[in-house]
Amino acid sequence: MHIGYERVTLTDGFWQRLREKNARVSLKNIYRRFEETGRFAALRCERSDPPSHIFFDSDVAKWLEAAAYLQAEFPDEEVQAIIGETVRTIVKNQLPCGYFNSFYQVYKPDKIFTERTEHELYCAGHLIEAAVALDKCGVNRELLPAMERYADYIRERFFVRRDAGFVTCGHPEIELALVRLYEHTGKETYLSLAKFFLDERGRRAEEVYPVMDRAYDQSHLPVREQREAVGHAVRALYLYIAMADVGRLTGDAGLLSACRALFDDIVRSKLYLTGGVGSGWYGERFTLAYDLPNAEAYAETCAAIALALFCGRLADTGSRAAYHAVLERALYNNILAGESADGIGFFYVNPLEADARYAAYARTVPGMPFKPLSVRPEVFDCSCCPPNLVRFFGQIGGCIYREEDGVLFVDQFISSSVSACGIDLSFKTQMPYAGEVRLTAKGRGRIALRIPVWQTDISCKVNGRDVQPAAKDDYLFFDVDGETAVDVTFGMQPRFVYANAHVRADSGKKAVEYGPFVLCAEEADNGKGLFGVEIPSLEHAQVQRTQAGICVRLPARRTVADGALYSYLPPETRSFTLTLIPYYLWANRGENDMQVWFL
Amino acid sequence: MHIGYERVTLTDGFWQRLREKNARVSLKNIYRRFEETGRFAALRCERSDPPSHIFFDSDVAKWLEAAAYLQAEFPDEEVQAIIGETVRTIVKNQLPCGYFNSFYQVYKPDKIFTERTEHELYCAGHLIEAAVALDKCGVNRELLPAMERYADYIRERFFVRRDAGFVTCGHPEIELALVRLYEHTGKETYLSLAKFFLDERGRRAEEVYPVMDRAYDQSHLPVREQREAVGHAVRALYLYIAMADVGRLTGDAGLLSACRALFDDIVRSKLYLTGGVGSGWYGERFTLAYDLPNAEAYAETCAAIALALFCGRLADTGSRAAYHAVLERALYNNILAGESADGIGFFYVNPLEADARYAAYARTVPGMPFKPLSVRPEVFDCSCCPPNLVRFFGQIGGCIYREEDGVLFVDQFISSSVSACGIDLSFKTQMPYAGEVRLTAKGRGRIALRIPVWQTDISCKVNGRDVQPAAKDDYLFFDVDGETAVDVTFGMQPRFVYANAHVRADSGKKAVEYGPFVLCAEEADNGKGLFGVEIPSLEHAQVQRTQAGICVRLPARRTVADGALYSYLPPETRSFTLTLIPYYLWANRGENDMQVWFL
Repeated sequence: MHIGYERVTLTDGFWQRLREKNARVSLKNIYRRFEETGRFAALRCERSDPPSHIFFDSDVAKWLEAAAYLQAEFPDEEVQAIIGETVRTIVKNQLPCGYFNSFYQVYKPDKIFTERTEHELYCAGHLIEAAVALDKCGVNRELLPAMERYADYIRERFFVRRDAGFVTCGHPEIELALVRLYEHTGKETYLSLAKFFLDERGRRAEEVYPVMDRAYDQSHLPVREQREAVGHAVRALYLYIAMADVGRLTGDAGLLSACRALFDDIVRSKLYLTGGVGSGWYGERFTLAYDLPNAEAYAETCAAIALALFCGRLADTGSRAAYHAVLERALYNNILAGESADGIGFFYVNPLEADARYAAYARTVPGMPFKPLSVRPEVFDCSCCPPNLVRFFGQIGGCIYREEDGVLFVDQFISSSVSACGIDLSFKTQMPYAGEVRLTAKGRGRIALRIPVWQTDISCKVNGRDVQPAAKDDYLFFDVDGETAVDVTFGMQPRFVYANAHVRADSGKKAVEYGPFVLCAEEADNGKGLFGVEIPSLEHAQVQRTQAGICVRLPARRTVADGALYSYLPPETRSFTLTLIPYYLWANRGENDMQVWFL
Repeated sequence: MHIGYERVTLTDGFWQRLREKNARVSLKNIYRRFEETGRFAALRCERSDPPSHIFFDSDVAKWLEAAAYLQAEFPDEEVQAIIGETVRTIVKNQLPCGYFNSFYQVYKPDKIFTERTEHELYCAGHLIEAAVALDKCGVNRELLPAMERYADYIRERFFVRRDAGFVTCGHPEIELALVRLYEHTGKETYLSLAKFFLDERGRRAEEVYPVMDRAYDQSHLPVREQREAVGHAVRALYLYIAMADVGRLTGDAGLLSACRALFDDIVRSKLYLTGGVGSGWYGERFTLAYDLPNAEAYAETCAAIALALFCGRLADTGSRAAYHAVLERALYNNILAGESADGIGFFYVNPLEADARYAAYARTVPGMPFKPLSVRPEVFDCSCCPPNLVRFFGQIGGCIYREEDGVLFVDQFISSSVSACGIDLSFKTQMPYAGEVRLTAKGRGRIALRIPVWQTDISCKVNGRDVQPAAKDDYLFFDVDGETAVDVTFGMQPRFVYANAHVRADSGKKAVEYGPFVLCAEEADNGKGLFGVEIPSLEHAQVQRTQAGICVRLPARRTVADGALYSYLPPETRSFTLTLIPYYLWANRGENDMQVWFL
């Protein structure tokens, strides 16, 4: 079982700096933009102009949850005051029965619990998650009892009286939220309600998403029979998270085997190199195996976050390094790319190729159904991703360690300290920029350190002496007896990575990785003409530290594009020095071209 | 000036066989499907269930025009009877003022000439074209006077009284139809009305296409200022055709220079290798320079036909081999691909890459905005392409020859005979499958034979003796004095062709051409796994005649795709014999994968 963020102390390093930026800049800026766009005012349950949106409550709830994690560590009076006022507004406007939804109470009071596509239980789920986080972090104690009353009311209507107009919500989220509520309060009714919602999904012919198909919201099959990741990617992964949770907590082998099959399906054929999922912009969905277009990639930030959370939940069901390898891939690429370097802009969509000319063109065409962006806006009409990123980074400490059979597993490389399995551990690393890891342990016990997939070689010292540690299933094992210093170096070199030939979009191409990072070339460093770049070899690649992180410079060739549209002569190419940067750092220097896959 | 189809006799060969198939099979099958779908019944101007469509009249008109050309050469009593009855129905239901539109008369009589987006003058234009063709071919004389009355009424309302609710039609077509009517009748009012519609376009702020932008229907600029091909591709090219016609007939240098700039813009950056144009499915439009996706190509059959017609019209304004080179590219690839081998199926959209797995998936997703097809349906909801193909092939004889400064130009390689410029010419060729050309000429004069861009070498004999003919601007010149036999062989070899590096979709790739054909690989010949195929060389390529035409077999490599989604190891490749066929022959053996661009 993973060790919760509340038991882990992050120490100086890449992630703590990011979280501090989120606390000082992102959280406040998201608040400001949400306030301007009426998201906080909506909670007052008064008619507004323009009217509020059906899932404004969830935006605010995710902000509250993010604030809870960060406030525990980076307290700020202004943020504390906003939390207090926001919670008071919710509690004040909650109906006597326990129900709270600012949209339905104002605009559709007669439609409460009758419209399964309108995100009502989704909003409830995020409010419950916020309440748990605020209580657990000791930041606010008022929301939890209010949301328990709401959860009790949901149980009354959906499970006891069964008089709601639908059974399962069109957007999964309530299921995983109820599990969190159960784990925090210990009240079994919440777990059984979560299980009820899972059990009912895919069993009711009338529960078809209008316009879309039954797969869109994963209602095409009973959950235990689902083996292929389909439909809206965020919905899918939120559902799978709850399946993994309930499976683990109730020992339901059917749920767990479905979860593992779904994970395998994603990893086998539906995962971008950057850890993104849900390649299709139409329906924001999983499409079919190996359909992974680059410029038209959807790869929503929230979907990658949900994938990372799912990976963490799977790891709780039994150790398998692949879960944390995929979590790492999503984390250092698609997820990190979601936020701008200055902490105020956010990506919703995360392409692996950007053509600034095309983006500018698409903006000029009214009604263009898919308009790629290559700069990060501060807020969106549907602004789920910004607060989701901040709440995810806020609880990042919860994905580092696991306790399993008395062994302390180190799954992610994030400087931090923890006490568990009889060991006081201080973990320091230069990752993600360099592969050195130092574990300083006291006590008596055993540590397992995940071997990252990208390492090119491994060297280990224990108390200054070279050792060959025991290795099993992609973990290194170290025994701790008294004060023990473990130094491990994972070789980090630029490496080519190739996609399976079934991936049409990448045929004949290769990408470059460096440690956990997928690298990309950006016009800001390389000028125009990225789309015909050929990298013959990585032999002369040089890694350089930069203010932003790292860059890799290497000899490459590109095609001269000054001729006719078609020619019988092969295009002329020229040598140049290509600069690659971590993918997540792209789009911080104005709108420009970007490319991940090269010839 | 080109020599009209009515003066050219096609003799046995590729094209005459196709036209015969169209006469015997396609024309009748399109009639049957149009009859079933209420298109012919709509002309009776009675309410129907389901109601008729705003441009059903144009579908029937194009069928009539196709029937006119084919009936002149392949007379058929059944077809003659349908023509007669159809024309009588139109004439009978024409309003006393001259107006005829079966949709407006039945469903919106109070809205006549008030809705510029609803294709009213577009339908009128196609009826006028049909009337001219029927009269010119001597197949029916009744429709022409009726359509002259309609044209007069249009002139009365739009030009004299100016009381119509709009000035220019949202879908150009009336302009080019009025020129054809002028050229057939000699009545200047039709030419001046065409010029009026051209002059007014792009000058009226209120003429904005709803939802779309001003460029969508080429109303963004006065036509003489247009230099970039933009908006809906068929609309654009129908407009450009009229601009070329009016420019030539009135000596309007502004129109002609705009046309040449528009042609150059297309050829420089907006033309598929197959001669397709209008790459964007959204809005069926020209997008931006070098945006030529393969699997998502729109490349509507009607747009390629319109491009070919525009090329022919440009050639009438002054010789330039490039016009006929582009016409040939469109003709032997995108346009021919529009019709199935058996003559009953038609493509609307013409991709350069087809993934049967993706096509099958897309069909399962409700509302999917773009669903690729890899089999040809017999009829579409919007079924403009099928009759457009047959009417285009019907008049194909009109694109072979031109008279210019007393010289007989041979622009296209189609077995036929003609008398012009003092020469009786019989032209025989094995093209498109082999490069031999025999011109048997009697009389006294000069012949210019276009040198195709794809030839690898040229040999010429006059009366059996090797000669080096005069060559200028991509034409070979031969003097005829008495009975003269000219034999020219244009070397035809499989050749690699490369796209400009600005074309993201083709970077690092190459295609193979053979003579006028772009070749493709199809799953039916090569099995699955076309998308990672590498062709190292054409050295060992073997061309074979087949029942369908030709195929090219050559050694190639392809990637084994049985591993993980991503790997640090380069994918394993295997040698195999690749079979290529002319692109236009694809999709005649069931739904399967197809690829034009190779590594």
